[in-house]
Amino acid sequence: MSIGHKNGITTDAAFSARLGSVADATEALLAKLISQTPVEGERTRPERLVAAMRHAALGGGKRLRPFLIAETATLFGVPEAHALMAGAALECLHCYSLVHDDLPTMDNDDLRRGKPTVHKAYDDATAILAGDALLTIAFDILSRSETHPDASVRLSLVSALARAAGAGGMAGGQMLDLAAEGRFGPKTALDQSGVITLQAMKTGALIRFACNAGAILGSAAPHEREALDTYGRVLGEAFQIADDLLDAEGDTATTGKRTGKDDAAGKATLVSILGRDGARARLAALVEDANRALELFGPRGDILRATARFVADRKI
Amino acid sequence: MSIGHKNGITTDAAFSARLGSVADATEALLAKLISQTPVEGERTRPERLVAAMRHAALGGGKRLRPFLIAETATLFGVPEAHALMAGAALECLHCYSLVHDDLPTMDNDDLRRGKPTVHKAYDDATAILAGDALLTIAFDILSRSETHPDASVRLSLVSALARAAGAGGMAGGQMLDLAAEGRFGPKTALDQSGVITLQAMKTGALIRFACNAGAILGSAAPHEREALDTYGRVLGEAFQIADDLLDAEGDTATTGKRTGKDDAAGKATLVSILGRDGARARLAALVEDANRALELFGPRGDILRATARFVADRKI
Repeated sequence: MSIGHKNGITTDAAFSARLGSVADATEALLAKLISQTPVEGERTRPERLVAAMRHAALGGGKRLRPFLIAETATLFGVPEAHALMAGAALECLHCYSLVHDDLPTMDNDDLRRGKPTVHKAYDDATAILAGDALLTIAFDILSRSETHPDASVRLSLVSALARAAGAGGMAGGQMLDLAAEGRFGPKTALDQSGVITLQAMKTGALIRFACNAGAILGSAAPHEREALDTYGRVLGEAFQIADDLLDAEGDTATTGKRTGKDDAAGKATLVSILGRDGARARLAALVEDANRALELFGPRGDILRATARFVADRKI
Repeated sequence: MSIGHKNGITTDAAFSARLGSVADATEALLAKLISQTPVEGERTRPERLVAAMRHAALGGGKRLRPFLIAETATLFGVPEAHALMAGAALECLHCYSLVHDDLPTMDNDDLRRGKPTVHKAYDDATAILAGDALLTIAFDILSRSETHPDASVRLSLVSALARAAGAGGMAGGQMLDLAAEGRFGPKTALDQSGVITLQAMKTGALIRFACNAGAILGSAAPHEREALDTYGRVLGEAFQIADDLLDAEGDTATTGKRTGKDDAAGKATLVSILGRDGARARLAALVEDANRALELFGPRGDILRATARFVADRKI
């Protein structure tokens, strides 16, 4: 049994402190990166576009994905400044996906992190462009020397992120989600394996990338890389089950977004397929899987163990 | 005087053959890259999403941007397979921008290259996701070893493309264009310098990137790199003036897209500011600038000289 389990409370306090610290540093870095100041090779950055990008990317969120990069990178002694740059890139990409998913023609959401969504605060065209520009700047950020001194490491991040985010990853997952809702034909009744594939792509892929990114930044050995890939995969699934439980049980005031959407849409989730108790049991099993994947890191994996608990238990 | 000028007809024939050859090779490569077969790190690629991406990227266009990469790369003896990969990446990015720009909430175009636009052939949500996925796969393609054996060269391409395409480049240019149309407030009467900046970003940035990409792939010396950057910059401006002249003078049957749009929208272009004759004079001066930039390459620059003539004279 790991120290993380023996001293859960202490570890959880350390986890919370670390989570807050990475979130603050990520916020500051994003504010610097997403500004009107052009970088070399750029002409001007239009004010309204930058404002919409900042609306999307600043002032919100737990910054779980940057945190996962920071914590997995720490296992290999990677300087935090590198992990934060990669985290900022990933957060730009994550925020682009929220902006586009919230559009009226997609999921049509007005509220995100307790604020109006970008297309409500601005307009649909600005939201599309702000999303496009956030997606694009993610690759700009990854390619900068501040992310890692070694170009081949930065290139591995670019490749892994593009695949996690594209047609065979996140964007594909959103497509499967719209299809399951019956947007392009009869509604598809997804079974458990269909739901798991959809969610592994739509939300899991970026979380898994985050855990792989630490290993890439740290030039991890193959068995370490594989362990973090497994951890990222099960954490991604756990995250989505917790999210579906929150949607079923939470309220808008607490979560800062509309809830009860899945049920209203008749959407298949692991909660609807397994029931709440079944989903909770699967969540607990996934936390165990996450812990098992971390075994080779010993006590150095305690914060990541606490992260898995946090992801499973989160109320917001 | 260069051979290209002395033997314009011969060079133009060689140019046409090369343009067609690169277009065919690009088409075949895009068909292979944008398929339902997932690559390592991907799960599945949803059929409808891939079909929409293929609708956007296949079967059309002169492939001018891939051609510019191929021709500038040839100056440095870069194997054509590398240039074609970079060209395919750039074409994916170019096609994403067309798909998003054509959306009802953006420029609301129904016709592109003589075919229904993606949101007409599919739907708005699919078009947004297909654009997102095309933008994303561009960076995946650039990061592959088939694009160049040297990771730092691939990374330079990633960085340059991200900056050409993002908030300080193409996406920013589209934002300036919507703003100039009065979409977010009073219509802005752009002066000549405002139009040049807008167009340098909206359409110029990717053409300029294409010319820089050959220099990056070929590890060009700084003075060669600078010459191709200048060539790309003036070629981009020439391309847009020719486009605006076509919009003013062409017809939909010939161009495969709606014409007369700028005038109907009361949009400032160099044609509206300088008049058709003034715009044509500027176009001729830009072709001269392009030729001057190519001087250091001697006869090896003949096809690129022919390209500048083609861009200025094109009727489609």
